[in-house]
Amino acid sequence: MSTYIPTERTQVKRLPKRAAYDKAQVHAILDEGFVCHVGFAIDGQPYVIPTLYARAGERIYFHGSAASRMLRSAGEGVPVCLTVTLVDGFVLARSAFHHSMNYRSVVVLGSARPVTHDAEKREALHLFTNHIVPGRWEEVRQPTDQELKATSVLALDLNEVSAKVRTGPPLDEEEDYALPVWAGVIPLEIGFGEPVPDSRLQPGAPEIDVGRLKKRRNGAGR
Amino acid sequence: MSTYIPTERTQVKRLPKRAAYDKAQVHAILDEGFVCHVGFAIDGQPYVIPTLYARAGERIYFHGSAASRMLRSAGEGVPVCLTVTLVDGFVLARSAFHHSMNYRSVVVLGSARPVTHDAEKREALHLFTNHIVPGRWEEVRQPTDQELKATSVLALDLNEVSAKVRTGPPLDEEEDYALPVWAGVIPLEIGFGEPVPDSRLQPGAPEIDVGRLKKRRNGAGR
Repeated sequence: MSTYIPTERTQVKRLPKRAAYDKAQVHAILDEGFVCHVGFAIDGQPYVIPTLYARAGERIYFHGSAASRMLRSAGEGVPVCLTVTLVDGFVLARSAFHHSMNYRSVVVLGSARPVTHDAEKREALHLFTNHIVPGRWEEVRQPTDQELKATSVLALDLNEVSAKVRTGPPLDEEEDYALPVWAGVIPLEIGFGEPVPDSRLQPGAPEIDVGRLKKRRNGAGR
Repeated sequence: MSTYIPTERTQVKRLPKRAAYDKAQVHAILDEGFVCHVGFAIDGQPYVIPTLYARAGERIYFHGSAASRMLRSAGEGVPVCLTVTLVDGFVLARSAFHHSMNYRSVVVLGSARPVTHDAEKREALHLFTNHIVPGRWEEVRQPTDQELKATSVLALDLNEVSAKVRTGPPLDEEEDYALPVWAGVIPLEIGFGEPVPDSRLQPGAPEIDVGRLKKRRNGAGR
């Protein structure tokens, strides 16, 4: 089994039995999510910005535009924390205290590097697009050189990584199991609504098949 | 119209037309979400941790256990950034470059204060619980003093706040509208699956009505 080596900074200290460092498990969480939250600090003030990302092997690419503040102020080698969270279910216990969530989250620490080479940036955009809708890149107009220049992408290697996972039913105090209250898990999943075509769609343009989209956060809380 | 006053730190600089400072709009986003991402920095390294929260007027309470690292290291008045993101839809354009998301996000900057008084902490837990399942607090066993002590809660006032919102169809380059490719919005919404009762449920315990749960991220991307 291939795992990330916990460091002082990624060793899960609270509820360590929920920790996971297995690479395959980390990759699966990263591949199911599509929005990450990137944290960076300026003059001691942290900022947390949502943005899109995709994984390529042991590297994550993420959209840097939203974090342009960071890029302007810090240049190369910015310390960041990139977090992906999938919520699988509400866990309803018999006591308020033991209410919880079933979730899978990944925290990546490291230095983000701006992607400057056109070929690598193009490949990252390819990954972003097809991570949302497989095959989409191949059917739309490709970026021009100017568009490529206008897009900022950052790369972060998967070295210092931890996952945290909760699954299963509520865990109540022994005496509380006698209480006549409903307890269990309410699974959450992201559903895709009916696609809304753009008003200027060309007549005869093919329809979009929502079945092409990846299932996301699908019932792992059960 | 009551608004938050933008500061140098919360003024949205990229795509400023997506910015919103209206209090009612910020409150609505915070009330629809249930997981926030809290950022804090230790020795210049940012950390971003997902946790539960609820709003009480112009204050947010969030679960501090996951951020216990922060509490241990920093004591009172920790600079944090609390971000809530709702994704409403995938925006599919005719060019790769103009692909986007419909989303609503809120960023709160400030100093988090540990809640130490029992009454305030109990009220925060009450809010957390009923924010997920309205009325749940009233039907489960209340926290003991020991459980209350074992729970850490932080408070963050809504002073330095901004929202960012994208809605509507893709915006393509004029010449791209002639391309015969599907374009439009695929709405996302969180669905609740069939509740999974705990295996030790008391016979005759009432069922849970999923209709009690708030609708989340429901179709605002249309």
